[in-house]
This record gives sequence, structure tokens and C-alpha cells, in this order.
Amino acid sequence: MAETLERKELEDLQDGLARVRELLRRQRLVESLVHRTEGPRHDLEESLVQRQHQAELRRELDDMHPADIAFILEALPIEERLAVWDLVKAERDGEILLEVSDAVRETLIADMDRQELVAAAETLDADELADLAPDLPDDVFQDVFRALPVEEREQLRAAMSYPEDAVGALMDFEVVSVRDDVTLEVVARYLRRFDELPDHTDQVFVVDRKEYLKGALPLSRLVVNDPERPVEQVMLAEPFTLYADDKAQDAAQAFERYDLISAAVVDRRGRLLGRVTVNAVLDFVRERSEAELLSQAGLREGEDVFAPVWQSVKNRWGWLAINLVTAFVASRVIGAFEGSIEKLVALAALMPIVAGIGGNSGNQTITMIVRALALGQIQPEQARKLFAKEVGVALVNGLVWGGLLGLLAFWLYGNWKLGIVMTAAMALNLLLAAVMGVAIPVAMAKLGRDPAIGSSVMITACTDSGGFFIFLGLATLFLL
Amino acid sequence: MAETLERKELEDLQDGLARVRELLRRQRLVESLVHRTEGPRHDLEESLVQRQHQAELRRELDDMHPADIAFILEALPIEERLAVWDLVKAERDGEILLEVSDAVRETLIADMDRQELVAAAETLDADELADLAPDLPDDVFQDVFRALPVEEREQLRAAMSYPEDAVGALMDFEVVSVRDDVTLEVVARYLRRFDELPDHTDQVFVVDRKEYLKGALPLSRLVVNDPERPVEQVMLAEPFTLYADDKAQDAAQAFERYDLISAAVVDRRGRLLGRVTVNAVLDFVRERSEAELLSQAGLREGEDVFAPVWQSVKNRWGWLAINLVTAFVASRVIGAFEGSIEKLVALAALMPIVAGIGGNSGNQTITMIVRALALGQIQPEQARKLFAKEVGVALVNGLVWGGLLGLLAFWLYGNWKLGIVMTAAMALNLLLAAVMGVAIPVAMAKLGRDPAIGSSVMITACTDSGGFFIFLGLATLFLL
Repeated sequence: MAETLERKELEDLQDGLARVRELLRRQRLVESLVHRTEGPRHDLEESLVQRQHQAELRRELDDMHPADIAFILEALPIEERLAVWDLVKAERDGEILLEVSDAVRETLIADMDRQELVAAAETLDADELADLAPDLPDDVFQDVFRALPVEEREQLRAAMSYPEDAVGALMDFEVVSVRDDVTLEVVARYLRRFDELPDHTDQVFVVDRKEYLKGALPLSRLVVNDPERPVEQVMLAEPFTLYADDKAQDAAQAFERYDLISAAVVDRRGRLLGRVTVNAVLDFVRERSEAELLSQAGLREGEDVFAPVWQSVKNRWGWLAINLVTAFVASRVIGAFEGSIEKLVALAALMPIVAGIGGNSGNQTITMIVRALALGQIQPEQARKLFAKEVGVALVNGLVWGGLLGLLAFWLYGNWKLGIVMTAAMALNLLLAAVMGVAIPVAMAKLGRDPAIGSSVMITACTDSGGFFIFLGLATLFLL
Repeated sequence: MAETLERKELEDLQDGLARVRELLRRQRLVESLVHRTEGPRHDLEESLVQRQHQAELRRELDDMHPADIAFILEALPIEERLAVWDLVKAERDGEILLEVSDAVRETLIADMDRQELVAAAETLDADELADLAPDLPDDVFQDVFRALPVEEREQLRAAMSYPEDAVGALMDFEVVSVRDDVTLEVVARYLRRFDELPDHTDQVFVVDRKEYLKGALPLSRLVVNDPERPVEQVMLAEPFTLYADDKAQDAAQAFERYDLISAAVVDRRGRLLGRVTVNAVLDFVRERSEAELLSQAGLREGEDVFAPVWQSVKNRWGWLAINLVTAFVASRVIGAFEGSIEKLVALAALMPIVAGIGGNSGNQTITMIVRALALGQIQPEQARKLFAKEVGVALVNGLVWGGLLGLLAFWLYGNWKLGIVMTAAMALNLLLAAVMGVAIPVAMAKLGRDPAIGSSVMITACTDSGGFFIFLGLATLFLL
């Protein structure tokens, strides 16, 4: 890719988008003129103008990098998006489908007929096809699969057999491999037979007759060493390698930690299967952090900003339903104390503060613990140490903020006992937040679940219902 | 780095951590024995055993990659961390300080004396020093700066002159450059004079006499082309380049989009300043997404999980203070309706549901809009279209969830007017959430501020106070 890139200012992309928008606008203008003046003469004339605009737009798109076209497609409302999509050269469809987000990909695929889809899919490598496969209609996939050469069919089957979070799902098959008993000169001559090496080839892999991985020969070693030396002497004898069933997350951390560009993927017996490159890792890291941010806000997946309303509703529905249940539970806790609130209505005004601050504090704790667990920095066994620290933080915050709120309550309602109840409730709810903020993610990790998912709802449910219960309970005991 | 890596299972890292812990445990055991049996004979005997353990630990650490030592330091409580830190070879201190998180770096630097710090800093390149500089005591930095050769001093000054979010801050100076009028053979001979090329050298840069960038020669082109050809014919004449004052975020997107491994950085006149590599970009992407997740949960920065309590308190204080203010405002809104609540106490139990669901829905909207703005997929000008969509989603949700809650309220309290007020309040608060969920980030973007920061607090403040006001206001108007 990089090799075919032209010097491109970053602002160019925004310019490109603006130009596409302008051309679309002009085209629409023409269309609306045609509709208004239905005469046959006008028709002809205007459609000529329109065709000119289309040709211009097509030229513009032909010059663009597939990733840039993907960007523009994502940034256009659905109707204009499909107008542009129709103008893209058919042989580039496959690449572009790989670059757009899942939500936008759906809209594009829905616009293509079976034949177009088969043609687009056939331009892709096996590992790319594996990424696209879940979004393709079954019959299209079958057609493409049958048309593949045997070797690629095997690769596709292999790539699709790995779960999304395994190294196998990040793997591609564009490996260049050489034997260990030749000289660098021979390797150099072999490489010169390629027109171009696969992207991200920073090293070629060294294998024996049976494809077992023996080492890796970085190009930078190839170019700095004497051509007469044998590969065996120059190669890394124990290169960093991954198993296809390793966790993708672990592979990403290794790439980051050891600054890798590519790594060999082997099966459990040591046979070379493929490689993972840093660009696949970069995409993975970005997508994962994206997914985490979205799930924290209760969105099931990335949304096409221009999606129809009902699609957005579906995407957000699950989370709202869960929150409705937890809010309802909290509401029933309050309901149990209606008698107390009737007698001292100030409780109604103060109780959301106790619940709210508890929720914030709990989310701070849980976020920190979840991240430390994900990085492997803490083990569930260290829970006691973490409890101690978080309880300490909660006590400090409880006394300071609780004390402040107690004073406020006293100042507002002139009732010092109310102030003390407020302070105590605040401190206790912060303690609850601290304990649950550690306990929830640690328990989830021990149960083998991903603590990043759902932790935030659970802690908020605890501190809401718990906060109302503590505050109203203490008030009932000591004030009434 | 990658070249010196040994075959290392991912689990090895956890094993390494376990071994270090075990050795520390044994050492502590010995120490405690020494303290209990103070006799001189015991002393001698035990200190021998202890020294053995130390030597073993030191050997273990010497074999580890600096990033792995950094990982272990982060995962150890402070006392054990410093014990391990003292055993690390002094010449590796600099590299390791670069790898640990800011919070942990502070604890390590606090443990070193001036001389150790100067020695550690002197092992680093100019761009690495620039990263470390903010954490170094002033006098140490001055010492190191004065000891640098003139060229590196210039580089350090340059690297430190860029803001943290500029390409200049990601840049390193390990560029290999060649002239365009030589043959590939000459380039190959020149490269062979290196013992090792700098990490991530996927291309050498082609410059003229005055260091103006003319092109780039990927190593993969160098190895596949005939050695007799001149560089000029083989190089990329218009490689992707960055300006030192481009936004780091834009550079990261370009690396991801165009699958780059390295890119030249030039000044505005086209002179080669340095390069950015994909590993710097990967670190940047990871750190940024980390910071976003943390700031969403109200943490100022990443915490050392084993930090003392007061340090954590400081890190979390600001957010709690802001939330206290917004919770207080919401509480005063309720306070204004105390008369209504006294007459119909069911309001107190139902009002948190209206506020809570509004907050969740608003956060969903704002998260989606913030991300689309950050990716450049939507322009603030398209606000009207987004409003329309979000209002549509809010109406659907308002009718469905609001209706459901209205039924619940009727079922609980047998008051159908209360049910209708509940439904109406829910729908209106979801509309408020939708409008503010678009308006807040779009307004922030128009004002040139980062919409990712603070949006979530603002929307929650709106839906809390707004939800209470709408629900209690409607109730006061129609029920009492």
C-alpha cells in the first residue's frame, strides 16, 4: 500500500470529502432541475451535464486510496453514500468493504447484487475473506469458496476456524520463507524474483523441508551482512513466535512491548502457518478500545451515524432495559421508606446526592481495577491489598465530602442530626462503593469472565439502591 | 530490540513475575529470621543465604527484556518494587524508566540519587530523553543536557519544543539517509557498514546535499531490484511525509489507514528532521484510548495500583468535587418541590428513574457523537441531521419505556394520572437528553475544545436536574 501512496497532506482527506460533497450537490441540483422541467429536450441536455459531473466524481474516486474512500463513505448520509458507492470501480469494492465499519458495510452490501458481491469477494486474500465472510450472504460465500484454489480454500477454512479474539484471526498468509542452508546471496537472488514483497515484510522466515520454523532473517540483517554468509549464521535462531490459538490481546501487548513489525505464527508442533503484522495489531487495538468505550456507554456496537432511527434504537435498547430494571429496584427501596420521607421531606432532596457520589466513586475504583486486571498487573489473589487501599481512599473521601455535605444539610435544614446522618450515610456508601468496586471485577475475573463488560452497571446498581437504603435507613433509625 | 529477543512464550512473563515474587518472599523470610535471632553467627550465615537469593534474582532480571522488567515493577507493591529496582543493572535504568507508567516512574525516580539519575539519562537518545525530561529534577536535567554533544543537544531542544499532541513529540532521529544519484549497489555497501540498522527501518530516506527530502527507498525495493539501478529510479518520489507540527492524532490515523511502518518528518521547507515509526504510533494510540477511558470514569491519570492512599485521593478528587456540585444543584431542584412531595410521596420514589434513564440515554448519544466528531466523520454543520435522528430515537424510547414505566407507576400506586405524568416526563427527559447529547459535543467542537473531555458530566448534570424538574413540575401542575 504505502508504496503506491502519493504525497498526501492530511488535510487532503477533508478536501476530498468536501469535493465529493460539492459534486454530489451539483448532481442533485441537476436532478431536481430535470424533475421540474420534464420536457424531452431538457432531459437530454441536463442528463449530459449530469453525466459530466458523474465522470468527474468517478475520476476523483479513482485517485483515492481505498481507506480514504471508506472514510468518505462513512461520512456521507445513506443516499449520497450509495450514489458514491455505485461510482467506485468494481475491482476496488472488496478492499473498501474491508476498511469500512461493520455498520456501514451492512448498508453497502445491502446495495449490491449477488454477482457484484462475488466479484468483490474474489479480489481478496484468504485472511481478508475470513474477515468479510460473516457479513456476506450464504450463497455468495459458497460461490466464492468453491471458486478458490485448494490452497486458499484451506487457508480460508483455517482463518475462519479461530475465534475473533485469537491470534489466528489477526493472521495473514503472505509469508516469504527461505531455507537455512543457503547463503544470503541466494536469498537476495530469490527475493529479486518478486516484483514487490508483501506489505510489512521486515523479515523472511527460515524453515526446514517440512515447513518447521527454524528462525527469522530480518531484511535489515540481510542488507548489512556479507552476502557470502549462510542464512543459518545470520538469522535469529529463536525469533518471537505466536501460536494461532494465543489470545489476540496478548499478541497485541507483545507487539507493543517488544516493538515488533511482524511475527511468525506456528502450530503447536512448530510448523509455520502464517504471520501477524503490526498493522493488524494496530487495527485490533483501535477496535478494542473503541468497543470498550462504546460498551461503557451502553452501546452494543459502533453506529453508522446516519443509520435509520430503528437501527439505533436496537443498538441501544439492551442497556436501557437493564438500567430500567436497576432503577426500578432502587425506586422500590425508596418506596419502602415512603413513611419516613412523608415525615421528613428533606430526605427526598438529599438522597440522590448520596447515591450519585457513591456511583461516581465506585466507577473510579472499578475502572482502575479492571484496567490493572486486563494488563495482568494484579492477580485476583491480591484482592486483600486492593481492598485495604480502596477502603482507605473511601474513608478519606467519606469524611471530607460526607462532612461537607453534612454541613450543607445542616445549613439548609437547620437540623444537626440530619447533618450527621448525611455524613454517616455518605461515608458508608463510599465504603460500599470501594468494596464492590474491587469485589465485582475480581469476582468476574475469577469466574473467567471479562471484567470490562457490565461492571459499570453493576456498581451503579449497588451504590444507587445501597445509597438510598443506607441513607433512608439511618434517617428512619435516628431521626424519626 | 526484536532482534535480540529470545523465543518467549507469553506465559513466560507471568512466570517471571511469579519467580521474582517467590525470590522476594524467600528473601523476606531470611530477613525476618535474621531479625529474630540477632546473634553474630546467625547473622553471617543468614546474610550468605540472602546474598545467594539476591544473586539469583539479579540473574533473572539480567535475562529479561526492559519492557518485561517494567511490567514486573508495575505489578509489585512499592517496597518490593524498590527492592527489585535496586538489583537492576544501572545501564538499563534509562530504558526501563521509559517503559513504566508515569505514576510508577515517579516512585522509581524518587528512589534514585542524582548520580544514578544522570547515569541513567545519559544512556538515552535525544527523543527518549525528551520523554523523560518532565519527570527529572531540574539539576539532573541540566547536567545531562550539558554533557550531550552539540547535535544531540539541538535534537533534544527540538523534541522538547513540540506539544505532547504534535507529531514532533512522536518523532525520533534514527534516520538512515542516502543520496539519489548513487546506485542500489552503493546503498547496499553503505548499509553494510552498519552493525545493525535502527529498529523499524523499513525504508531509507533519500535527500539532496542540503538535506531536503527527495524520496524514500523501501528496503523491500532495495532487495528486489537490480543493484545496478540508480536510487532515483527505484525510490518512491513522493513518499508519505509528516510535518513536525501536524497533530499526532492525525498521524496515527494515517499510519492506520495506509498501513505505514515509518514516515519521514520534514519542516515546512521540506528538510528532513526525523521520522515517526509505527511503534511510537501504537504507544500513542494505546495511551490515548487509555486516557479517554480513565477520564470517562473521572480519573485524572493512570494510577499506580499500589500507590499510597493520599495519591489516589488526589487523582480522584477533582471529578468528585464537580459531581458534588452537580448533585447539589439537582438536590436543590428537588428541594423546590418539597411541598409537592409531601403531598404525594410516590414522587420521591419515582423521580430517580426518570433522571437515571435520561442520563443513560444521553450518555449513549454523546458517546456516539463524540466518536464520530473525533474521526472527522461528521462536521459540526451537520448538527441538524443528527438532531433529527436523535430526537427520533428519543421519541421511540420515550413512548416505549415511558409507557412501560407509566403502567408500572399505575400498578404500584393505583393512580392513572400519575402514570401519565410519568410517561410524559420520561419522554420529555429523553428528548432533553437527545438534544443536549448532540448540542454539547457539537458546541464544544465549534468552540475548538475536545468534546471527549467533560461531555459526560455535563449531560448527566442536564438529565438529572432536568429530569427532576420535568417530573416534579408536571406532577405539581397536573396532580395536586
